[in-house]
Amino acid sequence: MPRIPVGGKAFTTLGLLVYLSQSNPLTACFCISIVAALWTWHIIPLVKDMFIKAGLSGKDMNKPSHPVLAESMGIIAATIYMVTTILFIPIQFQQWMTSTPNDDQHSTPISWSHTFPYNKMGQYLSALLSLQSMIFLGFADDVLNLRWRFKLVLPTIASIPLLTVYYVSHGVTFVMVPFQFRDFLGQSLDLGVIYYVYMGMMAVFCTNSINILAGINGVEVGQSLVIGISVAIYNLMRVNSDNPDTAYCHLFSLYLILPFIAVSAALFHWNRFPAKVFVGDTYCYFAGMTFAVVGILGHFSKTLLLLFIPQILNFIYSCPQLFRLVPCPRHRLPSVVKFTSSKKTDEYDKDDKKPNKNVVELMEPSRTRLADATHIGLVIIKTMDRLGLVSVKRNNNGDLIDCSNLTLLNLFLVRFGPMTERRLAWYVISFQIFGSVCAFFIRHNLATLFYEDIYK
Amino acid sequence: MPRIPVGGKAFTTLGLLVYLSQSNPLTACFCISIVAALWTWHIIPLVKDMFIKAGLSGKDMNKPSHPVLAESMGIIAATIYMVTTILFIPIQFQQWMTSTPNDDQHSTPISWSHTFPYNKMGQYLSALLSLQSMIFLGFADDVLNLRWRFKLVLPTIASIPLLTVYYVSHGVTFVMVPFQFRDFLGQSLDLGVIYYVYMGMMAVFCTNSINILAGINGVEVGQSLVIGISVAIYNLMRVNSDNPDTAYCHLFSLYLILPFIAVSAALFHWNRFPAKVFVGDTYCYFAGMTFAVVGILGHFSKTLLLLFIPQILNFIYSCPQLFRLVPCPRHRLPSVVKFTSSKKTDEYDKDDKKPNKNVVELMEPSRTRLADATHIGLVIIKTMDRLGLVSVKRNNNGDLIDCSNLTLLNLFLVRFGPMTERRLAWYVISFQIFGSVCAFFIRHNLATLFYEDIYK
Repeated sequence: MPRIPVGGKAFTTLGLLVYLSQSNPLTACFCISIVAALWTWHIIPLVKDMFIKAGLSGKDMNKPSHPVLAESMGIIAATIYMVTTILFIPIQFQQWMTSTPNDDQHSTPISWSHTFPYNKMGQYLSALLSLQSMIFLGFADDVLNLRWRFKLVLPTIASIPLLTVYYVSHGVTFVMVPFQFRDFLGQSLDLGVIYYVYMGMMAVFCTNSINILAGINGVEVGQSLVIGISVAIYNLMRVNSDNPDTAYCHLFSLYLILPFIAVSAALFHWNRFPAKVFVGDTYCYFAGMTFAVVGILGHFSKTLLLLFIPQILNFIYSCPQLFRLVPCPRHRLPSVVKFTSSKKTDEYDKDDKKPNKNVVELMEPSRTRLADATHIGLVIIKTMDRLGLVSVKRNNNGDLIDCSNLTLLNLFLVRFGPMTERRLAWYVISFQIFGSVCAFFIRHNLATLFYEDIYK
Repeated sequence: MPRIPVGGKAFTTLGLLVYLSQSNPLTACFCISIVAALWTWHIIPLVKDMFIKAGLSGKDMNKPSHPVLAESMGIIAATIYMVTTILFIPIQFQQWMTSTPNDDQHSTPISWSHTFPYNKMGQYLSALLSLQSMIFLGFADDVLNLRWRFKLVLPTIASIPLLTVYYVSHGVTFVMVPFQFRDFLGQSLDLGVIYYVYMGMMAVFCTNSINILAGINGVEVGQSLVIGISVAIYNLMRVNSDNPDTAYCHLFSLYLILPFIAVSAALFHWNRFPAKVFVGDTYCYFAGMTFAVVGILGHFSKTLLLLFIPQILNFIYSCPQLFRLVPCPRHRLPSVVKFTSSKKTDEYDKDDKKPNKNVVELMEPSRTRLADATHIGLVIIKTMDRLGLVSVKRNNNGDLIDCSNLTLLNLFLVRFGPMTERRLAWYVISFQIFGSVCAFFIRHNLATLFYEDIYK
């Protein structure tokens, strides 16, 4: 890339924005998303030393040399995302600002006050405010290392603007009832305040589920990218709906998800194996909140949950440890083990130079001791062992000594044997893609068993 | 205060909010501001160790023992401010949500969609978004120690939401022309894009001017409190205006400034001499942006500038150093000098125990050497010396060797002699109060020479 000073790039971007403000908002959104990706990609290597100097750094323990990398780099992606989405406000609403349907000749600022969709702008602003709050709280968490219980409280606080504006915009709080129950419950059921609790919990769920399936290079951003792209595909399928409200919901979601995909892709470039930077909790919060916001305001939160199948499975699989039926160590990440191979293996990563070419570093499941496990815990582990879902070690009497920790990452290693960090990350991302394919299948084929065909 | 668990306090607060949602919005705003102050006052001592542990700390160099204090504590005040203002959204708009003017009996959520002031909500949300952006950027500055030029760029970025929403809400961009020029310019002048540049500069000015007049215990928060209270008084004087637009502008400003005064007062309690915590750049950015937002959206930015008289004088007084006509050292804070007093002095602070009661620590102006000063710089310093605005030292030939640094804090010490840090802070705050009194005098008495009587 030729050396253009940052100021020059900023002006080019500004010029592009002015030019794009004349075009179709969705096209413009696509273009400025690409610009946002380029900025993210460009800025991260420039600022990472500043982060390390400020103490925002961590050791990459899965590499032989334990390199020190900048942490919380998700904040750069998130900040550029915020600037992009804010600059997009006038582009999004320009069609209502330049003319009125009645009087095209004499359009003055006053003349569009009757047709301007202030409620839509309010929704968009509340989405940005919630996202901004979450990013800020995520960064505070990275800096201050807040206690674990805050991780549940913070997304709830950050979703207050969203819920408040949803409320004052007389948001819909009813859900469609499946055919089978309509005789008892009617066609739709007004959940009232429960719906707000549900939305608040969406935010908590989305942020934490991404935060839990994490720990190796590129896996947080990778899974978020897959979910983001799946959301965009789903929106694109429905954005031409005959129902203008439905169409707008999905257009709205696209406006928020396209820049997200862009900045995440750029961040993924620096965070994938071998990672140059870490993304921090900030990114997990940012990604989770973006999904919660588009799901809630786009009115497709149930479909969104389908895209979280791998995270839900990870949660269910973790339950015996989360509920302390089986001891749960603080860190459950797979561990790195050196394997001496008789021949040179292509598994071994080229970027990671080592004197002895015959030694490969592979990941193995980490383990937890079962001495303090409850009786129910042991029964669950034995059942899982029979199903091949956990690897156990027994003593000479056949009693269980320890088992692999119950996370999806460890499960992959149990099923497919030791592998490099790079390959493990790709397994997770592939599984996420598989999950999205399943989600689309369920949404398209199974949903009609309970509801009208929404695509007609 | 009796020991109530935090959860209990949170629920009490929530109950109060629900209760207040039924009352007049301004009364409710006043009440939740008091709750916000209590929370700020309560939380700061609880979290300060967490900040020190995270490396957000600084030494208080003006104290004999150089105690280490938590930095950036403005973030707590700012976060509580944000939560308060967000929770205030439904209270502020409840009058439009419960009934419609036409049909009081059958009010449903759908019925108020025609009368609900979505544009007002948009303005309020954009104000919060700009404030949130500024707080976030300020905190990032505290953590990452951004370079000086960022201090000019960050407020501009943070004001983007405000300007964008001002634009899409077809904001007014004309100014009233004084009587004397109306023959040439007409009654009002549309400044167009210049008005947006002016608003962006307001944000830069407000944030930086508070940041510059800083450095001794309590002075940042103290001056902001005075400006905040002055703004509130001005708003209260005009909130009953016959013009409903004017009245709403000032009501809007009150909704934002009352919680600000509340959290600032609580922060001042911990930051005043002898400081228990530092407020950080975060607070200066937060305070400055709050003023810029209420000035811009409340349409009284010119009056607001009058409240910044001490900051403007400080800037003008600093100009010879800022423009490098006179050498400008990196730190220009007054220095602490030990004075041995023959008698016990009541100037000496009781909280700061020292073995020798006869030694007092007083502040003296810090000095800059004039060897590298430009010719114009020397002329300015000589003139100032004659006016008694600077203290200079000369060698035996009468040539200037050095002079006191050109800041308001040093000027007070030059004029009134060495004094304790506590007294110096009160001098600055008193000067700020004096400035506000002058501002009100100018606004009420001199403005009618150029404009119609706005109070009629």
